[in-house]
This record gives sequence, C-alpha cells and structure tokens, in this order.
Amino acid sequence: MDRVKVLEVKQSVFANNDEQAKTLREDLKKRGIFLLNLMSSPGAGKTTTLTRTIEALRGKVKIGVMEADIDSDVDAKTIAETGAKAIQLHTGGMCHLDAAMTRQGLEGLGEEDVELAILENVGNLVCPAEFDTGAVKNAMILSVPEGDDKPLKYPLMFSVCDIVLINKTDVLPYFDFDMEQCRKNIALRNPNACVIPICAKTGEGMEEWFRWLEREVASWRS
Amino acid sequence: MDRVKVLEVKQSVFANNDEQAKTLREDLKKRGIFLLNLMSSPGAGKTTTLTRTIEALRGKVKIGVMEADIDSDVDAKTIAETGAKAIQLHTGGMCHLDAAMTRQGLEGLGEEDVELAILENVGNLVCPAEFDTGAVKNAMILSVPEGDDKPLKYPLMFSVCDIVLINKTDVLPYFDFDMEQCRKNIALRNPNACVIPICAKTGEGMEEWFRWLEREVASWRS
Repeated sequence: MDRVKVLEVKQSVFANNDEQAKTLREDLKKRGIFLLNLMSSPGAGKTTTLTRTIEALRGKVKIGVMEADIDSDVDAKTIAETGAKAIQLHTGGMCHLDAAMTRQGLEGLGEEDVELAILENVGNLVCPAEFDTGAVKNAMILSVPEGDDKPLKYPLMFSVCDIVLINKTDVLPYFDFDMEQCRKNIALRNPNACVIPICAKTGEGMEEWFRWLEREVASWRS
Repeated sequence: MDRVKVLEVKQSVFANNDEQAKTLREDLKKRGIFLLNLMSSPGAGKTTTLTRTIEALRGKVKIGVMEADIDSDVDAKTIAETGAKAIQLHTGGMCHLDAAMTRQGLEGLGEEDVELAILENVGNLVCPAEFDTGAVKNAMILSVPEGDDKPLKYPLMFSVCDIVLINKTDVLPYFDFDMEQCRKNIALRNPNACVIPICAKTGEGMEEWFRWLEREVASWRS
C-alpha cells in the first residue's frame, strides 16, 4: 500500500463560515459531488461503518474519503486498504472542521473519480456541530455503549444531523440502553432525523443505511 | 430531592487562562480543597464512576461535584441522589471549562464541607485538554468500547492526565480491545500516567482508584 497522503488544513480566521459553506455546496452541486459530513464521539465506529459502506457501494458509487484527526493516520490507512481514494487531514489541534478546511481537504483529495466525498470529522459531539462544512447532508453515529441520554446532553449535534445511525447493536444485551427512549430523545431535538439502528461489525441494519445514502447521492447528482 | 442548582458559567475572553489557573490552585491549597478535573468522551462512564466513588469515600472525604454540560441536568440529579453536594454548570454551548469558569462553579458549589471538589468536564477528548482548569490533578476515563487506539488520536488529552481509568472492563470479551496495546499507546503519550483498568458497574479495580484518590487528597491537604 502506498503511503497515505497527509494534509495539514488551516482554519480561515477571518472568513464568514456560513457563506463559505454555502459557496462550497453550490460548487459541489455544479461538479456533481455529494459531500457527507460524518460525526460522532471518539470510538463510536465511524471508520468501520465507512469501510463497510465502501465495500457495499463498490461499482455503484465512486467514493473518496477525508479522514480528519488531530494526529495519527490510523484511519486513513484503514480506508486506503479498501482501495478507496483516501486522504488524512490533520487539524493542527483544532476540534472541528469548517468549510474552508473542508475545501482544502477536497482539493487535496482531488475530485476526479469522486461522486461521493465523505468527511470523517474529528471525534467530538460538541464543536463539529457548530460549523457548517459545506456538506450536503450531516450524519452522525451514536454507539450503544455511550447511552441513550446523549441527545439530551449534546442537543446541537442531534439538531443538525439528517440521519443518526445507532451503532453496536450487537452489544445491546450488555448495556442499559433503551432504543425506544433513545428514539424519543432524538425526536425531541430533531423530529425529522432519520434514525437507523445498525451494527457495522455484523452488518445488521446496514442495508437501510446504504439505500439511504445511494438515494441521497442520486438525488443530488440528478 | 431538592431541585439541582444550575449555574450558567461564562468564559472570560480577555483572561490569561494559565495565570488564572495557577492562582486558583494556590487559593485551593490555602483553603485545603483538592480539585480533580475528570474528563472523557461522551458516555465513557464519568457519572457512574463518580457515584461509586462518593459511596466508597463516604465518611472519609467530603466531596462536592460540579457537573458541566452543554445542556440538561441529568448528571447533577444522579449525583445529588447520592447525598453529595452537587451543582450543574451550563457552559452555554462551550466545549470545555477554563479556570475562570471553574472558579465560578466552585463559588456556586460553595466551599463549606468540601475537601474534594470534582469537576466533571464536558464529554470531549479535544478541547478540555487545552485548558488548565486550576485542578490539582487531571483524570480521564477511556472506556473499552472506544478502542485502544485513542491515545494515538487524541494525544494531548493523554499527555495532560495524571491518571487514566480504563472503564467497562466487563465488556472486554465483546470488543477488539487489547489492554497491553492500550497501555503502550498511553505510555507513548505520557509515560508517567497512572493507568487503572476498572469497571464502575461491577466494582472491579475500583479499590485501587479510591486509594489513589484518597492518597492524593491527603497529600494536598497535609
């Protein structure tokens, strides 16, 4: 495997982020690229979910992945092993990505052969929710071990997401996690969010997620 | 149960945080109060660990708890049910607490009958690590479901912590978590960190944590 490309992305201090995000989204529309912003706590299963998604959509959708991290290139290497186009973004200690940083990432990734660009944001339920990256849709993964009360504690994250994947359903028997209560807590913050329980490890529920993503990409590119 | 006191804490924009943290620590030393800053990802088990700690140290150490959250008072209510002095701090969307916010919290909590003040920081592995709260010691909880690679991805958090509790050891059989690899990854970032595997739910390893905490409090107050 080739060495993974690592890009140091810099925050644009003076920029109007909302304006930059809007412009980026318009540019992506023209170029037929769907950008998904994927967020979660550390260790909720973003990379495993992405790996399975790349495998499932192979031959159907051309995927490029930007792995944002404070440090390390563990995740980008894992993604690159699937054969998908991948780049590691280092945020220089920043806890989130804004639209300018995302644009730098997309330029680093290269738009050739990319129909679906996925930004794996920094593992954090607070700051990434505050910055529009320019993504067409926001997705988040909440994992069972984190607990069903997270929508009460991190309201903004759940408010800005179009879809919430509840991952690690295979360990439901070992945790005090009430799926119905979790759905209610999410609905309190965002009644329109699509909620899909999944297990990236065993594949449970993943088909519904793949179909959602394919549908959204097709609709954006049509 | 009485209603939990909720305090909106405000960041001091112009302050030199390091200086304020140093002054707060000196003030705490004079007043014989040990301040512990407890950090982790969302859902790693901070509140459950605290509940067990309060129960174990009852009659030995007088504990007061500051629960910092973006929103909700779920955790402060849980702590108040143990009978410990507790206050809920709302950060107004802020992803961390600085020394000025912590001082406001301590004033809100009230120092009477407090020998050990515990700040349960916002669930986040990035931002809280960047701000000295004035705490005497920093502790963090890494939970097994998050994975053993977290010290590689969130280096600063592991660098600033005096002690790392590896929680939820009861679910080790269900996750790909290598305890020895995790210890090595932590040591890479911080060879001096004390590492204790625990299960707050079953009590495994908790005695070692209680002893560490009692020892540190006694040493600070002597």
